[in-house]
Amino acid sequence: MALDVVILAAGQGSRMRSALPKVLHTLAGRPLLAHVIDSARQLGAGQIHLVVGHGGEQVEQRFAAADVNCVWQREQKGTGHAVAQALPALGNSGTTLVLYGDVPLIQSATLQQLLALVSNQQMGLLTVDLPDPTGYGRIVRDGSGQVCAIVEHKDADAGQRAIREVNTGILAVPTERLQQWLPQLSANNAQGEYYLTDVIAMAVADGLNVATIQPASAQEVEGVNTRMQLAALERAYQQQIARRLMEQGVSLADPARIDVRGELQIAQDCYIDINVIFEGKVVVETGVQIEANCIIRDSILRAGCHIKANSVLEEAEVGADCDVGPFARLRPGTQLLAGARIGNFVETKNVVIGVGSKVNHLSYIGDASVGDDVNIGAGTITCNYDGVNKHQTVIGSGAFVGSNTALVAPVSVGAGATVGAGSTITRDVDDNTLVVARGRQIPIPGWQRPVKKAKE
Amino acid sequence: MALDVVILAAGQGSRMRSALPKVLHTLAGRPLLAHVIDSARQLGAGQIHLVVGHGGEQVEQRFAAADVNCVWQREQKGTGHAVAQALPALGNSGTTLVLYGDVPLIQSATLQQLLALVSNQQMGLLTVDLPDPTGYGRIVRDGSGQVCAIVEHKDADAGQRAIREVNTGILAVPTERLQQWLPQLSANNAQGEYYLTDVIAMAVADGLNVATIQPASAQEVEGVNTRMQLAALERAYQQQIARRLMEQGVSLADPARIDVRGELQIAQDCYIDINVIFEGKVVVETGVQIEANCIIRDSILRAGCHIKANSVLEEAEVGADCDVGPFARLRPGTQLLAGARIGNFVETKNVVIGVGSKVNHLSYIGDASVGDDVNIGAGTITCNYDGVNKHQTVIGSGAFVGSNTALVAPVSVGAGATVGAGSTITRDVDDNTLVVARGRQIPIPGWQRPVKKAKE
Amino acid sequence: MALDVVILAAGQGSRMRSALPKVLHTLAGRPLLAHVIDSARQLGAGQIHLVVGHGGEQVEQRFAAADVNCVWQREQKGTGHAVAQALPALGNSGTTLVLYGDVPLIQSATLQQLLALVSNQQMGLLTVDLPDPTGYGRIVRDGSGQVCAIVEHKDADAGQRAIREVNTGILAVPTERLQQWLPQLSANNAQGEYYLTDVIAMAVADGLNVATIQPASAQEVEGVNTRMQLAALERAYQQQIARRLMEQGVSLADPARIDVRGELQIAQDCYIDINVIFEGKVVVETGVQIEANCIIRDSILRAGCHIKANSVLEEAEVGADCDVGPFARLRPGTQLLAGARIGNFVETKNVVIGVGSKVNHLSYIGDASVGDDVNIGAGTITCNYDGVNKHQTVIGSGAFVGSNTALVAPVSVGAGATVGAGSTITRDVDDNTLVVARGRQIPIPGWQRPVKKAKE
Repeated sequence: MALDVVILAAGQGSRMRSALPKVLHTLAGRPLLAHVIDSARQLGAGQIHLVVGHGGEQVEQRFAAADVNCVWQREQKGTGHAVAQALPALGNSGTTLVLYGDVPLIQSATLQQLLALVSNQQMGLLTVDLPDPTGYGRIVRDGSGQVCAIVEHKDADAGQRAIREVNTGILAVPTERLQQWLPQLSANNAQGEYYLTDVIAMAVADGLNVATIQPASAQEVEGVNTRMQLAALERAYQQQIARRLMEQGVSLADPARIDVRGELQIAQDCYIDINVIFEGKVVVETGVQIEANCIIRDSILRAGCHIKANSVLEEAEVGADCDVGPFARLRPGTQLLAGARIGNFVETKNVVIGVGSKVNHLSYIGDASVGDDVNIGAGTITCNYDGVNKHQTVIGSGAFVGSNTALVAPVSVGAGATVGAGSTITRDVDDNTLVVARGRQIPIPGWQRPVKKAKE
Repeated sequence: MALDVVILAAGQGSRMRSALPKVLHTLAGRPLLAHVIDSARQLGAGQIHLVVGHGGEQVEQRFAAADVNCVWQREQKGTGHAVAQALPALGNSGTTLVLYGDVPLIQSATLQQLLALVSNQQMGLLTVDLPDPTGYGRIVRDGSGQVCAIVEHKDADAGQRAIREVNTGILAVPTERLQQWLPQLSANNAQGEYYLTDVIAMAVADGLNVATIQPASAQEVEGVNTRMQLAALERAYQQQIARRLMEQGVSLADPARIDVRGELQIAQDCYIDINVIFEGKVVVETGVQIEANCIIRDSILRAGCHIKANSVLEEAEVGADCDVGPFARLRPGTQLLAGARIGNFVETKNVVIGVGSKVNHLSYIGDASVGDDVNIGAGTITCNYDGVNKHQTVIGSGAFVGSNTALVAPVSVGAGATVGAGSTITRDVDDNTLVVARGRQIPIPGWQRPVKKAKE
Repeated sequence: MALDVVILAAGQGSRMRSALPKVLHTLAGRPLLAHVIDSARQLGAGQIHLVVGHGGEQVEQRFAAADVNCVWQREQKGTGHAVAQALPALGNSGTTLVLYGDVPLIQSATLQQLLALVSNQQMGLLTVDLPDPTGYGRIVRDGSGQVCAIVEHKDADAGQRAIREVNTGILAVPTERLQQWLPQLSANNAQGEYYLTDVIAMAVADGLNVATIQPASAQEVEGVNTRMQLAALERAYQQQIARRLMEQGVSLADPARIDVRGELQIAQDCYIDINVIFEGKVVVETGVQIEANCIIRDSILRAGCHIKANSVLEEAEVGADCDVGPFARLRPGTQLLAGARIGNFVETKNVVIGVGSKVNHLSYIGDASVGDDVNIGAGTITCNYDGVNKHQTVIGSGAFVGSNTALVAPVSVGAGATVGAGSTITRDVDDNTLVVARGRQIPIPGWQRPVKKAKE
């Protein structure tokens, strides 16, 4: 049966105090709305309808996709009004699920259970028991336990206020019914708004059963209205991920000091020290050690490699048993083959470093190809940029590049060649030869040390 | 009406286990006593009287100011004795407020309420309700709710011990009364000390009303006796700041991992990743992103700039839309104009970097002026120091400095000039010219690679 | 009286999801089992018997020592069976204490109290009161308070389930009794295993008194079965250490953000900022400041030195009043004499840096000896490696090495000598002379800037 998902994403979020529409604020590195859309997609939604309003152009642009349909809510006249904007796009059959762009942690497993409740004679409503239900709409049930009404906090009597089961706003309805009910909503209330909640009363009046389930955790239905709430959900989410990693066989030095922002695939027996951040899509194979304060973005770490403290990796592939850092920076396009070593204060970019090769200290190797078993001395720099164009440096296997060398690209150093320390290499170096390019050492006679100048 | 503030700051703080007087230990980067003096100043205190004793010279020296008067308490004979040392300086009119140098988080708003209670016929006492009042002096009230006595814990009967309202020691009194009461204090008790608390009984005896208020939070009246307590207050303070920043429209990756030590002015829609430290006076304009593990001290970050991970800034100004780091270190006197870029392993000091100019890798640029649209290659170093004097380097707009270049100051590189990679520049370079200063590349014939020496 | 300690260390720990035997997983940087062995050694145990099984070879190898005897439990048939494997090695006199390799935080002070209970007519049992005793064996006592049985959770009636005092499994018994009891254990139960717990019933039956004590904290008897539990114990342990450091007079910026993995000896009035990690044996003298994100491994920090943010030290000795970092990396064999200064992006290794000498920026100084009052310019590199051998660099006191210099070892720079910036030094430099080794600066006439290439 066809599934349409309507996601309300029009709110301004004025309590965020931000120029950015609320649903574009990020949790775990991705917009709130992206989390909700992900959950919707996992349900096999035929079409996802985003109801946009404040900052709607930005939202539309950010989430443009074949299965996403943006409908505009030009005026903010309540949740029922918001869903009604999507009615023309919904058709008359199948099920419609209503989600919220600022309720990011809703899980597709919960939603699947909710959808399973829906039939011609039954709609599904997600409710949650709260320790303190103040402010929320209470779920009122009849003697047989059937939902008979939702009573808003301000309208509730003392007995109803004692009810802890509240409405989350998330519901799944036969689309045909929604088409019938929404036009009947009235704004005849204190706020002058059309409330989606009112469809519950219509369902009851029409003899539909309102079946309910609850989420596995209350966090799934928590909304974000302030940056405090956002930060709290971020921490809850990170804790959940930390727990999952440990269950998978990963050791964390401190589960409260790891941040995963994106998708982390990680194998057993890895060790992650404090304050490591993963961003984007990261794959980590078995036995990898990552020391403190590393940032790993969109990278692949092969089995047994060791990333030492304070390293920053982005779009890099680190081969098996490589050693990286501390204080290494691997920029996009870096590929380290097995057993290679990148040491401290070294930057690499768009480069292949061969098996067992070493760049141990204070170097910049960019736009280059380095063979196997090469030793690149401290302070070596590939001069890859002439101010307008980038050029390649090629270093053959077994070469030895002395310290403090500048390699002016385009240039190649042959296999087995040696470059003397302090050289500036501007022409290709043959295989198995030694080349130097530096000044002669000369003493300066009669020289006197400078003396301290008087302050003027 | 004139306000005198007496701050007790003579205690040794032996449980701190420190050579430093307790009130000089720091919270949020500033001495405990500095926080208290700040609050006093916000009240418009005419004169602030510090009662000093242990380490008094250090305290006197640290807080010397026109509105600060240090009085010595040579022997430690109780709080009443301490305040009595200030009596000669207080005069006979106005109000005296007593604060404590080791109770750092007292808020001026609370004190203002306290001072508003004081009149000829009334004194003000700050009390607090504690979940566990064990050890504190209980506030005993009569049938009409008036304070009639403070009973110390050890003297309290079971009924009094059940009272949770306790004395904070902070009080405000007509100075004339203090002049009258303090000389009457007796040390006829177990400790042989003069207790300030005893003035409450005197006030009651003299028919003065003792009016009370409570602080907004119990932390305001918590004292520091151990480093554990200090650390707990530090965390409470940092949490408070984190909350305030989020309310202002700043996103924090983790409110438990930010440290603000000083004064942070920050605009809306900034993002602060984990473990960032702010020290001194820092101004951050709108839309700034600060990545993990950065330390920002006494600096200005203009709108839209991006400080990447692991950067350390001190007395720097970063222009709009600049990119800094990761692993950048901006030292005092660094000024980056709009759109400039400082990359990894780069140190700057006492330098202006022009609009859109780049120093991307492994460089030290100090005592220099760099024009607009300059590209400074990797490994460039301004040799600004001859062992005794510092000299200037001037680089004109549009210049291109090749990698691994040493610029021996004083020296200038003209506008639009190019310096070949690997050069050591000792003389000025004309505008729009190319200069190189490096050795010729020569192959060494008949050369043999070194062989591994046998261990001796 | 002779003491034998039997430590059960044969379990697989399948819930750890690890190829590593459970007892080799680390807490505070050391294997769980190492913590237990330490506690046993502090008791003066004559012999420590490790009962090994899963991964037993690795355990045997890791803990080989004169006082350690490994006995194999080839099949996992219960705790009683495990201890029974050690019986042949135990003899017939003295006391036997049973510990667990996965209960790492047990304190020797607790165990000493437990051992003090043991006599011919009495054994000792460590019990603990738990808020939620579900799943644990309850301690059943008779009317006079004597232990009369341990009832497993599944066998307990409602009254027994209300008992919160549970068995920890840690017990001390006259060895003679253990020799008598263990062979009588039966596996006639649901699991078909031999339970050590059953000796309690035997003791009672034989008229021995079962005396109990409880640990100071429940953490002492918590076992590790999952990485979540391990992480929780790690945090508990680190909190304990943080508290101890503060009690000793050390200031911590955040007690929740410090990690001590090994042995830290630290004097009064040191300050440790957030996210500092200590590993191995570290000695820190009085007044040392360590800024954020530093990692200090097996090093000595002399009085008053200052380690700035993001520095990594390993097997280094930092002299009094030295300044190190930020972004410094001191590798093994680094010795800084008093007042020396290592600045940003500097790596040192196997080097002595003399009194007051400075290596302030972007340098690699390895296999070298540097005299007093030497200034080493930015970008200086000791070329200590020729591809196969390492060579020494010697720099005399008072020397000045200009920036961007390569020192090709073996080489020496004499006392008071000056090396011009940008030099590559291949031959020894005499005392008090100036030497340069660089190319002449020449303008290139008729030169045109490169132009942007069209994309192909």
